[in-house]
Amino acid sequence: MAQRLVVIGADAAGMAAASQARRRRDRDDLEIVAFERGHFTSYSACGIPYWISGLVPERDQLIARAPETFRESFDIEVRLRHEVTAIDLDRREVVARDLERGGEVRAGFDILMYATGAEPTRPDWARGDVGGVFGMQTLDDGAALLEWLDADPAPRRAVVVGGGYIGVEMAEALIQRGLSVTLVERDEQPMSTVDPDMAELVVDAMRTLGMQIRTGLSVTGLEQRDGRVSAVVTEEGPIPADVVILGLGVRPNVALARAAGLPLGPSGGVRVDRRMRVPGVPGVWAAGDCVETLHRVSGMPVHVPLGTYANKQGRVAGINIGGGYATFAGVIGTAVTKVCDLEVGRTGLRERDAVAAGFEFVSVIAKSTNRAGYYPGARPMTVKLIAEKPSGRLLGAQIVGWSEAAKRIDTLAVALWNKMTVDDMTALDLGYAPPFAPVWDPVLIAARKAVDALAGSGR
Amino acid sequence: MAQRLVVIGADAAGMAAASQARRRRDRDDLEIVAFERGHFTSYSACGIPYWISGLVPERDQLIARAPETFRESFDIEVRLRHEVTAIDLDRREVVARDLERGGEVRAGFDILMYATGAEPTRPDWARGDVGGVFGMQTLDDGAALLEWLDADPAPRRAVVVGGGYIGVEMAEALIQRGLSVTLVERDEQPMSTVDPDMAELVVDAMRTLGMQIRTGLSVTGLEQRDGRVSAVVTEEGPIPADVVILGLGVRPNVALARAAGLPLGPSGGVRVDRRMRVPGVPGVWAAGDCVETLHRVSGMPVHVPLGTYANKQGRVAGINIGGGYATFAGVIGTAVTKVCDLEVGRTGLRERDAVAAGFEFVSVIAKSTNRAGYYPGARPMTVKLIAEKPSGRLLGAQIVGWSEAAKRIDTLAVALWNKMTVDDMTALDLGYAPPFAPVWDPVLIAARKAVDALAGSGR
Repeated sequence: MAQRLVVIGADAAGMAAASQARRRRDRDDLEIVAFERGHFTSYSACGIPYWISGLVPERDQLIARAPETFRESFDIEVRLRHEVTAIDLDRREVVARDLERGGEVRAGFDILMYATGAEPTRPDWARGDVGGVFGMQTLDDGAALLEWLDADPAPRRAVVVGGGYIGVEMAEALIQRGLSVTLVERDEQPMSTVDPDMAELVVDAMRTLGMQIRTGLSVTGLEQRDGRVSAVVTEEGPIPADVVILGLGVRPNVALARAAGLPLGPSGGVRVDRRMRVPGVPGVWAAGDCVETLHRVSGMPVHVPLGTYANKQGRVAGINIGGGYATFAGVIGTAVTKVCDLEVGRTGLRERDAVAAGFEFVSVIAKSTNRAGYYPGARPMTVKLIAEKPSGRLLGAQIVGWSEAAKRIDTLAVALWNKMTVDDMTALDLGYAPPFAPVWDPVLIAARKAVDALAGSGR
Repeated sequence: MAQRLVVIGADAAGMAAASQARRRRDRDDLEIVAFERGHFTSYSACGIPYWISGLVPERDQLIARAPETFRESFDIEVRLRHEVTAIDLDRREVVARDLERGGEVRAGFDILMYATGAEPTRPDWARGDVGGVFGMQTLDDGAALLEWLDADPAPRRAVVVGGGYIGVEMAEALIQRGLSVTLVERDEQPMSTVDPDMAELVVDAMRTLGMQIRTGLSVTGLEQRDGRVSAVVTEEGPIPADVVILGLGVRPNVALARAAGLPLGPSGGVRVDRRMRVPGVPGVWAAGDCVETLHRVSGMPVHVPLGTYANKQGRVAGINIGGGYATFAGVIGTAVTKVCDLEVGRTGLRERDAVAAGFEFVSVIAKSTNRAGYYPGARPMTVKLIAEKPSGRLLGAQIVGWSEAAKRIDTLAVALWNKMTVDDMTALDLGYAPPFAPVWDPVLIAARKAVDALAGSGR
């Protein structure tokens, strides 16, 4: 008789796992059922800001694979609008509520794939039922915001709360739609995914774009008029707002896991081993934004919700469920984004992470250009490197630059992945031609500067 | 008493060595004299096509450092238009001819830096004194061509002989100036720096640009009228030409070295050790386009004339001459270029190189896009990987793509440098965001495909 795989959460991680398992085991051997509380399968949440800005015109462009594709091409049963409410490990079944028609479904499993993703942080003041306040995690969130923006009279003043990737990308999207935008950041600076000295370059670009940026300021409440938001309340007084976007980060969605007794790690995510098994719970796997993973540089468990990790982890779980062998090697925290045309890339540890992990290090910032200085379109490019003292091992890198800059972080990410020292990096054979780099590549210039700093530090 | 360093050739390698030596040893300790037969020091030969096309308006933009800078800031004596005609190792002196005023100069040395660069291959038919035929290696070559192009009546028909980097870049430059251009390539395909299946994509782009491409065809002579070229002669008849550009490659300029008895390697370049010393000849160093170097993948000595290597090798030599310690780690043949907006990157071995080096391998081509498919400006990007069988070790990689493609070869170059297997590469943590990559980066897609190919090959 066929085994049954039940997948909780039919987005990137869950469906990557399901597809890979199906590639290796056919229907007679493995029945696959996926429960999804939302309206969609596998979509690009990272693409939502560009849909809001109008750059990506249609919602469906963000959907990688529709449920029909999974049903027809992969023989995977997808139950949309079904929210799993409990996992019973003893009976080996899940309980799901049908959000459309009501009622409860029970489904037994031999293998369980836990892929519930992350949930946005919602402060108390944002929990009420005030119109015009939006999280921005799902396609439904995006659709609701677009409807709000298209109302008559159209909202003119937006406040974005939180200056991480989503906050900054949404702020830009709303500027592009013609709204006046204020970004409120609790810390000293938005874009804390890079060190303050690098974030400063980004903040300058955001201001040039016309964004108001208020830092060191917490939002404590909302003002409303007729059930619609009219301002956010802060310690320094209200900031008028016709629309409010919450970009306060996410945390692993582990309510079900906790209730079922699955082990959680120090970062708050579900614990998994290198094959994406939940340790100590036979037949249960987990992947994506709900798990914690190993940071290869700090050696510590971290929660980094990124679509690319979710896809990779789901694939690893699916290969293993399918009877193959695959492991997830951990992360080094590579990420890229852009604000107007200013591109930002990062990998490895920031200075504060390196301190927290107990490293001694030097850090250097090297200013250069993305192309030969004389080549048209040459623009400034700044590379920051953090290197362990005295070994010279690269611990982290950040790039900020105008055009063709962000993806160069991959060069540094591969160097970091391979535990290269900055000394060794000065010898790297990187591509040179005037349209693409100065004769000394910005990465090499930075590596040389780091070597000098290490020498100067008396390593 | 101070020692004297004599540098032969005041371009990238020679002057990088001189500057680094000066950083470590002051004038009282080391006198530095550089002889240069041309009119310029340290300039970007790679930038010449863009000066010809008009993209870079001024010749002087291509000059990295003028002789005055070396004299004033580095206390290095630069003698332009002085051609060294002999090296006397017994007397430890060089003999130089003053090309401007005539006469001979002798200069003793304690340390000799041989940095004569490369010389263009000139077939017999191109050796005469026919107007309108140009090599394209020096700023003087470029100035002469520009003068010819600006004549009245202006040349309309150009023939470029040879389809390597310089040939292809010059062909594009002349198209941009409004000439009709025919590129004549002796082999089956131009752009043989990548494998034929990848070169095909480039050739398509060249044709779209309006270039005539004649392959498998050798030029055997020139036709002229009143001392000006009127056609190139081929086995398939004459091709009319008002201007002819030679792009037939270069070879190491070793006449002086050979005469002085310096050791030459199988590639034809001067032999050097890892510190850029000429082995067995105390006090003599060499670097740049005149030397041969270790290919880290094939393990064989190669001659790869590239400005980036010249700079790095010169720097290594200079650090050592200055009393420091540095080594040149060899090359893996990373290179980038563009044809119109089509970008090309390569690193490591091509298939033919892998065969020649005795590797067994699989190769795969993966088609993807530079950005998320739904993001505006997403364009095709093709990645080819060559992986050793059965180990999976990456041996070579090539990328062809429209915009933001070429420099991604660096990601693969660093993987190759670190001897990664394609299996390990599937786990790499590369930057993802919709404006920069699909959720599965093109590099990762290619690595996965290579893993599948290895499995299919029964490794």
